[in-house]
Amino acid sequence: MRRSIATVSLSGSLADKLTAIGAAGFDGVEIFENDLVAGAMGPEEVRARAADLGLGIDLYQPFRDFEAVPPALLARNLRRAEHKFAVMERLGATRLLVCSSVSPESVDDDALAAEQLRLLAERAAEHGITIAYEALAWGRHVDDYPHAWRIVRMADHPGLGVCLDSFHILSRETDPYAIETIPAEKIFFLQLADAPRLPMDVLYWSRHYRCFPGQGDLDVAGLVAHVLRTGYDGPLSLEVFNDIFRQAAAMRTARDAMRSLIFLEEEVGERLDAQGALNLPAPALSLPAPPPAAPVPTGFAFAELAVPEPRPLGDLLDALGFVRTGVHSGKPVELWEQGEARILLNSGSAESEDGPALGAIGLESPDPGASVKRAEALLSPVLPRSRAPRDAPLDAVAAPDGTELFFCRTARPDHPSWTDDFGRDRREPPDGEITHIDHVALTQPWHHFDEASLFYRAVLGLRPHESLELPDPYGLMRSRAASTADGRVRFALNVAYVGAHDGVPYGASHGGPGVAWQHVALASRDIAATARRLRAAGTAVLPIPANYHDDLEARHDLGAERHRLLRELGLLYDRDAHGEFLHFYTLTTGRVFLEVVQRLGGYRGYGAVNAPVRLAAQHAASRPRLG
Amino acid sequence: MRRSIATVSLSGSLADKLTAIGAAGFDGVEIFENDLVAGAMGPEEVRARAADLGLGIDLYQPFRDFEAVPPALLARNLRRAEHKFAVMERLGATRLLVCSSVSPESVDDDALAAEQLRLLAERAAEHGITIAYEALAWGRHVDDYPHAWRIVRMADHPGLGVCLDSFHILSRETDPYAIETIPAEKIFFLQLADAPRLPMDVLYWSRHYRCFPGQGDLDVAGLVAHVLRTGYDGPLSLEVFNDIFRQAAAMRTARDAMRSLIFLEEEVGERLDAQGALNLPAPALSLPAPPPAAPVPTGFAFAELAVPEPRPLGDLLDALGFVRTGVHSGKPVELWEQGEARILLNSGSAESEDGPALGAIGLESPDPGASVKRAEALLSPVLPRSRAPRDAPLDAVAAPDGTELFFCRTARPDHPSWTDDFGRDRREPPDGEITHIDHVALTQPWHHFDEASLFYRAVLGLRPHESLELPDPYGLMRSRAASTADGRVRFALNVAYVGAHDGVPYGASHGGPGVAWQHVALASRDIAATARRLRAAGTAVLPIPANYHDDLEARHDLGAERHRLLRELGLLYDRDAHGEFLHFYTLTTGRVFLEVVQRLGGYRGYGAVNAPVRLAAQHAASRPRLG
Repeated sequence: MRRSIATVSLSGSLADKLTAIGAAGFDGVEIFENDLVAGAMGPEEVRARAADLGLGIDLYQPFRDFEAVPPALLARNLRRAEHKFAVMERLGATRLLVCSSVSPESVDDDALAAEQLRLLAERAAEHGITIAYEALAWGRHVDDYPHAWRIVRMADHPGLGVCLDSFHILSRETDPYAIETIPAEKIFFLQLADAPRLPMDVLYWSRHYRCFPGQGDLDVAGLVAHVLRTGYDGPLSLEVFNDIFRQAAAMRTARDAMRSLIFLEEEVGERLDAQGALNLPAPALSLPAPPPAAPVPTGFAFAELAVPEPRPLGDLLDALGFVRTGVHSGKPVELWEQGEARILLNSGSAESEDGPALGAIGLESPDPGASVKRAEALLSPVLPRSRAPRDAPLDAVAAPDGTELFFCRTARPDHPSWTDDFGRDRREPPDGEITHIDHVALTQPWHHFDEASLFYRAVLGLRPHESLELPDPYGLMRSRAASTADGRVRFALNVAYVGAHDGVPYGASHGGPGVAWQHVALASRDIAATARRLRAAGTAVLPIPANYHDDLEARHDLGAERHRLLRELGLLYDRDAHGEFLHFYTLTTGRVFLEVVQRLGGYRGYGAVNAPVRLAAQHAASRPRLG
Repeated sequence: MRRSIATVSLSGSLADKLTAIGAAGFDGVEIFENDLVAGAMGPEEVRARAADLGLGIDLYQPFRDFEAVPPALLARNLRRAEHKFAVMERLGATRLLVCSSVSPESVDDDALAAEQLRLLAERAAEHGITIAYEALAWGRHVDDYPHAWRIVRMADHPGLGVCLDSFHILSRETDPYAIETIPAEKIFFLQLADAPRLPMDVLYWSRHYRCFPGQGDLDVAGLVAHVLRTGYDGPLSLEVFNDIFRQAAAMRTARDAMRSLIFLEEEVGERLDAQGALNLPAPALSLPAPPPAAPVPTGFAFAELAVPEPRPLGDLLDALGFVRTGVHSGKPVELWEQGEARILLNSGSAESEDGPALGAIGLESPDPGASVKRAEALLSPVLPRSRAPRDAPLDAVAAPDGTELFFCRTARPDHPSWTDDFGRDRREPPDGEITHIDHVALTQPWHHFDEASLFYRAVLGLRPHESLELPDPYGLMRSRAASTADGRVRFALNVAYVGAHDGVPYGASHGGPGVAWQHVALASRDIAATARRLRAAGTAVLPIPANYHDDLEARHDLGAERHRLLRELGLLYDRDAHGEFLHFYTLTTGRVFLEVVQRLGGYRGYGAVNAPVRLAAQHAASRPRLG
């Protein structure tokens, strides 16, 4: 099937957009009229440029407010259409998108709409052009695809069909099943967009918040499966209006778009396979071969911190009960372990200029090679082996924010272990309260959040959780977790707000530490013991205000003894329907801090309710002291 | 009346917020619970800090999900309340906001709600605390103030009253007239917020887009007038949840808030005076003396461009038919004139480092001194005379973006004229096609847009037009015009999008020229002649693509001759119900370009429909050439 994308989905000039679309490997393009009109390239030049890039012009769009109007206006609209047919001929485009009218001058009369669309299709045919009629979700009289299809059927012209758009259908929760009643040859085009569920008017939502399939909450794959079951074999074409994509670099957005489409095709294939198992008729057309399946990671192998020098963080790990079990045979990297929690302190990395930072994460994979093949098939940069700072063969890719992800099999007989580089005389990890890494939290640049969200879902096979908004003293922070079904690998992705550039103190401005913090959360089986251990070592943790515990006591009645303990040890508390959560934080150093958590019962969250308190305390702790 | 503000309206720690609120001259503060809970200052410390700053604690808020619940939950809720009463006693706060429940555990039973709120008021009274019950617009069972008032009346306890909130009332278009049926002593609090009309769910709208009165579209003044007519004499208190204010500097936001309140009081006073004229009963309480009335400006006196050297812009003005009529007696400033259009080229200003920039604007005022007094009363920085770069006495203030606004009386016998500084032998201005300055467009930093919008409205007495969104190749640009009723002074305020920091080329990133362009639009009575004059002088203007004229011809049938002329001269075209608009642009130099416009009939707009074409052409023109 052809992969296509509308030029409106990307930033820049039309020339820039075409270049980016070509480079990302698309087959075709929808020319969004405004991009042509505002550009200096004439239609012939656009045609030649697209051809040079191997791109077909699959659609010219949109033509608005045409149908079901009084005769005088019809004449004006036909005149307008003839001008557009002329442009399309110069452009070499043969399909025009006509979207249902929003004009107050149009009337609610299907027969009239059909008659006028038939007339338009006849005129278009004289130019070798066909018409794809689309129901806008906010159309004045025609606002869903079954209605558009009734009119197209009534018009009964071979050059007139429907255009289906996943956003218009799924945003209004129109039942997509009836798509299968439309003959494939009358589905002239398929436009695809996802969106996060947001409680707003559909037009406003559509104009600002569309995103690529897999980045939002709509079941785009389910919709495409319905379309393919008709036998549709036209393009799968992305059409996204997104305030952030408008500002981002076109090349990167185009690659993100292609990743979305590859992942979507895989999901659609799974839906169709599932239907096959139910003995439902299979679609006439087969999808491209899917990427290799995602080997679901089974845990964190390690977290690597780039540090200017190993001492202060090593002291903290020591206080937490970690032991330095080994030193890399050839590089200034220390391995610290406790249970299955492993932290690497790398003092030889260039990333440590602003103080400690989280540079790499190791994930346990059932098949590291397959994990990398999947990442590569989904257009993620695979890190060259030569760049890997360790000697054992390691399979690694770069996450969208630049964090290196290594796929590991730690101490398994079937695969070389990265731990071998830390010497044969590696000490035995101690068995303390801390058992493993519970989760890793990464702050994403604000304009790469959707890309990151799709990456963790598509490349690593994690399941996205709901999006949250957390008030920080200097802005709202968006947060979204992604985890494996069993919770053994959990990531929290935070999106930095864009700090105002004047008057906001202490590193909260754009790119400063206030919005770029990263942290590693360590699971403890006895958080009170861990907290006491730190206290005994004289190690300060993030101070939690007494006001928090006063409020906690107002909200929950945990018994006087438990409240006393939480207060004394400075622990934060949350609970959900499945269990309870206790946690505390170390002080931030560079961009990094550690969290210690204890899950009681089946608690599923990350203590988000306490994040505002944590953020305020961190800002307070990062203020320069007076005197 | 007391002026108050909720701490949630500002950014930073609670200590920062109190400092900013005190500095802006407020009388009191609403302590937003989350700000207290997340802060390190204990309640006693907050109490002392507020007292030191001269701030009363007028409200503690919010207490949620209390009323109309089953007995077991009631007991838990009362326990929770007792904890909060204890905090309030330490804080010295005597009024608690209880907002209507959103809990699924609450039931739709007014009698039960009243009974439980009465019980709460009784318990509160033991601590000297009273309860202000507020209907949230999204309350589960109680979602408007008449309903909240019915329950309060039914509960019949002297320590229980209603809290009215302009956003909750006006967002849902609840009729505010019935407020006047509530006895003043039962209105325990009045919270004020405005908001732009946005098509979204009211909760989402409320959480992200509230703004200060006068910055949005709601009739807050009308609502306050109803409240004051009851005899209410409690605080006027601002409570704003706004994503941008959360990030902006607290001191500046607090001053903006105070400006909003002063302007609001003036508007309310006018409403009440108008009612007085209708022999309606006047409110018992008088508002503070309003600021001096805004003398409505009657035109542009000049626009001053800071230039590295006068030549290239002087050549452009010459080509446009301007004449250099004078040179400042003591500074490197040239005066260029044509009709009543006056441009100053100042080559002695520090502002010209990045090339030409618009540094100052002169406005014709009927009373310059009064204009400045009003600006000062509305907390705008008045520029010290000594800083004024001219010798004649000039009255000037700084607009929020730093542009200097001078209030002038040009060549009037009743007032010294700024033109006197340009010599007695000043040449007579030529009488060409260009007659005056039509409008000035200023790009505002994204986090100061609401402040600027209120400034032009409150300080200069301009009327805001509707907000528009204009697609630029690298992001959506928001634009809002403000003008005098007669259109003699028009400003277009554009808000820059925040450019992504990687991969976006050619100055479109934050703070670059792509988002900081400013322009002066000159009115021509014969734009074709002006365009030909430039062509004859060999002066290039911004090239408009042929695609634009193809599209224009599709959209409008202006006759072959007129289309030919528009195309030949590179003119843009728009029309509205009142007339037509022709315009073109010069090339950008530094941050500045000029526009030439011709209004035919009573056209009211600014050619916004053509802005995307203009922006794309400007980005294309600012690209470095290859080779």
